[in-house]
Amino acid sequence: MHKIALYPGTFDPITNGHFDIIERGIRLFDEVIIAVADSQEKKPMFTLQERVDMVKLAVRDLERVTVVGFDNLTVELANTLGATVLIRGLRAVSDFEFELQLGYLNNSLDPNIETVYLMPKLKHAFISSSIVRNLLKFNGKTEHLLPSPVQDVIGSMKSCTLR
Amino acid sequence: MHKIALYPGTFDPITNGHFDIIERGIRLFDEVIIAVADSQEKKPMFTLQERVDMVKLAVRDLERVTVVGFDNLTVELANTLGATVLIRGLRAVSDFEFELQLGYLNNSLDPNIETVYLMPKLKHAFISSSIVRNLLKFNGKTEHLLPSPVQDVIGSMKSCTLR
Amino acid sequence: MHKIALYPGTFDPITNGHFDIIERGIRLFDEVIIAVADSQEKKPMFTLQERVDMVKLAVRDLERVTVVGFDNLTVELANTLGATVLIRGLRAVSDFEFELQLGYLNNSLDPNIETVYLMPKLKHAFISSSIVRNLLKFNGKTEHLLPSPVQDVIGSMKSCTLR
Amino acid sequence: MHKIALYPGTFDPITNGHFDIIERGIRLFDEVIIAVADSQEKKPMFTLQERVDMVKLAVRDLERVTVVGFDNLTVELANTLGATVLIRGLRAVSDFEFELQLGYLNNSLDPNIETVYLMPKLKHAFISSSIVRNLLKFNGKTEHLLPSPVQDVIGSMKSCTLR
Amino acid sequence: MHKIALYPGTFDPITNGHFDIIERGIRLFDEVIIAVADSQEKKPMFTLQERVDMVKLAVRDLERVTVVGFDNLTVELANTLGATVLIRGLRAVSDFEFELQLGYLNNSLDPNIETVYLMPKLKHAFISSSIVRNLLKFNGKTEHLLPSPVQDVIGSMKSCTLR
Amino acid sequence: MHKIALYPGTFDPITNGHFDIIERGIRLFDEVIIAVADSQEKKPMFTLQERVDMVKLAVRDLERVTVVGFDNLTVELANTLGATVLIRGLRAVSDFEFELQLGYLNNSLDPNIETVYLMPKLKHAFISSSIVRNLLKFNGKTEHLLPSPVQDVIGSMKSCTLR
Repeated sequence: MHKIALYPGTFDPITNGHFDIIERGIRLFDEVIIAVADSQEKKPMFTLQERVDMVKLAVRDLERVTVVGFDNLTVELANTLGATVLIRGLRAVSDFEFELQLGYLNNSLDPNIETVYLMPKLKHAFISSSIVRNLLKFNGKTEHLLPSPVQDVIGSMKSCTLR
Repeated sequence: MHKIALYPGTFDPITNGHFDIIERGIRLFDEVIIAVADSQEKKPMFTLQERVDMVKLAVRDLERVTVVGFDNLTVELANTLGATVLIRGLRAVSDFEFELQLGYLNNSLDPNIETVYLMPKLKHAFISSSIVRNLLKFNGKTEHLLPSPVQDVIGSMKSCTLR
Repeated sequence: MHKIALYPGTFDPITNGHFDIIERGIRLFDEVIIAVADSQEKKPMFTLQERVDMVKLAVRDLERVTVVGFDNLTVELANTLGATVLIRGLRAVSDFEFELQLGYLNNSLDPNIETVYLMPKLKHAFISSSIVRNLLKFNGKTEHLLPSPVQDVIGSMKSCTLR
Repeated sequence: MHKIALYPGTFDPITNGHFDIIERGIRLFDEVIIAVADSQEKKPMFTLQERVDMVKLAVRDLERVTVVGFDNLTVELANTLGATVLIRGLRAVSDFEFELQLGYLNNSLDPNIETVYLMPKLKHAFISSSIVRNLLKFNGKTEHLLPSPVQDVIGSMKSCTLR
Repeated sequence: MHKIALYPGTFDPITNGHFDIIERGIRLFDEVIIAVADSQEKKPMFTLQERVDMVKLAVRDLERVTVVGFDNLTVELANTLGATVLIRGLRAVSDFEFELQLGYLNNSLDPNIETVYLMPKLKHAFISSSIVRNLLKFNGKTEHLLPSPVQDVIGSMKSCTLR
Repeated sequence: MHKIALYPGTFDPITNGHFDIIERGIRLFDEVIIAVADSQEKKPMFTLQERVDMVKLAVRDLERVTVVGFDNLTVELANTLGATVLIRGLRAVSDFEFELQLGYLNNSLDPNIETVYLMPKLKHAFISSSIVRNLLKFNGKTEHLLPSPVQDVIGSMKSCTLR
């Protein structure tokens, strides 16, 4: 069995929590494709290109991992790329509810795609991109929350370019 | 990657919800070992032998699936059997909380074993072994909740042998 | 439409929270039948007869309400009594999960029986029979938690008859 | 007892989950009034008139059901229309929390109006209007999520009129 | 031990639920500082100055309580003011999740600051600022939800100044 | 203000999660009294005396901390000891629900006693006494879950004395 897994998300920006899920994914499956959603309706802090670039930086030392941007339905992207597994990280109860709903939706759209839920390491369990964005806004400490190449890039961006 | 996944539980008795998770497991991994816990502290309705036999009946047509009984720690069993993945089914919020706790415990005992969470088909989302046991006690209908060979075996058991 | 609603439970003992749900039920439906489950597996503090008697005392001034004991499946009892509605009280998230599971089970057993969920008044939202039993064990104050005729009866029982 | 029940919501658009709740409502009460909230603050995809029209289309074959638009407090509308029951659908834990809060608020505003919570069929448990809107945006399949006359109308709208 | 506690929030506007938490806080700690966050990203109904003024009005009869506005990280503000305790009110499960995440974040930023969670009186458990804002929008009754001097001030504001 | 806080529980046995809450308690209040409940109805693994002794061992280096056993209502014990604060640890949603119920009960019994909720360090968030008991039963590793003097004592007990 050659299993390709898709890990979709907005990654605004990629955090240590996401990175932890990616590392678990490559221990479980033959390939992991990280799919960065355009998500204009969420008014992301970083452009799609910036988010894709940061993910690429974060995973540059990992084998069997690729990164794509997308702006269509997750199950369509999975079919296009030959992925039969979706990876989702689970943190909290509110995540869980939403993920359950999304999982059943995706199953109703394509029953051949299996969703697999992984939990991050306990020390990453409180990290979310929205918490990171809030810290960036107030110049708070984020180096314990972000992969170090991502921390470096964000640090070198003009803070005025961040909302 | 040859991945062996362990699916531990009490299976008192195995339900269509469990069966659904097993079918998903063999689509994801090379082998699935179903591990039936002795769980004497839960005072199961069926003996360990009966529960193992019912699981074997239920999965007799599935390839790459084996069944064992056990009475030690799950991570120890996984190591003994060469399994590097634990499969757990997720249904509801209370499941989720408990599973989170168990997952972090198992990770603290052996960080090399990955836990993967799967959700059953929506139509199996309300099934639990305790609901089945309650129906059996009152001679309620269970054929929509149990794999059919299990339904047959339980039907043929003397009801006096069931608590 | 003449609607008969069944309100099943263990009522060990009936609390002000239960009473509140009963009052809401008779505002909504033509008849409310309170069905006291034998529930021997829960090792109740009060016998079925004591629990039925206490419910009868509590509702003696309410019209269109009757009380029965039962030891079979709720949907079977409903069919026997001509009830097409089940009433359930909802308090907390853990209640909600369990009730969802039970509601789907009952619907799978008899799709003609509708389950209706009601929430008690806020001031009764923390009351449960298990909290009352714990207070009784330690001779704690319960008069704000129990219908007053029930409080009187329990007060006059020999405490030695209570576990 | 002639009971009029009000089922308020945004219905942006009405889904099979809503429709299921409406069918349950007319089995329980003498009349069901579906009240479509203007909800401009939610920036709905469809105008109030479009949403009212779609609900009317969906329920055209149901007796004892009427549809109104509104832009005031739900309890005020209920009083104006002579409704003494509010119907709410419950799906998930986050729904439950919010509904509990709303139910207690409405009770604090008018204690004579009773809120009744119903759960949709299991196969509709994952459907929400926001999931439908997301699918519409990406031209995903929605015919299993929408009442068929609503599906037809939305299909015939110019997609350019949808955000 | 002289303990200064910080109670941060948006207070848009301060409700009886907030007030209840403040009263509990001054029973527990030597000083309570109420910190009103600017929170422009939430597009508050009232300006920071209006919100600070309303909190000051609400607590004018309480000793050992002060009020400040702020627009930086909570832990930074706490350090500046010599506060070693953060007070947070807990109401519902979704609150709890968010608060857990925030508490772990703040602990990761400054392990010397302790977060203490308090629950409001049951009768205030359903009150939230967003419910109050919605009632204000529709001229609904709010006097049971707001401290009376705050109710008076809001009543005297031109309704046209409220969104 | 001289504040005495009571931290009640079964402590069967005391874990690093409990110990973490105790350390937080003494940073917040002048005295912390750890109250070990007899809890015969829970059929504890260790006797009340053993549990009290283990807690004493665990906290022997902490100042302003005392330990008592008790078998009455928590609020009665608090009044007897002059404690005006109850400390409770919060871990998960199911904890939270139960604690909310208990907190409102205790408030209904004695409104002068304030309950304060604390969250343990993230790395202790998955530890519970029942998980420890299960590991002890199977001779699993517990030294990362227990205060070291407690680990030593349990290690030296004859395993035959443990259920």
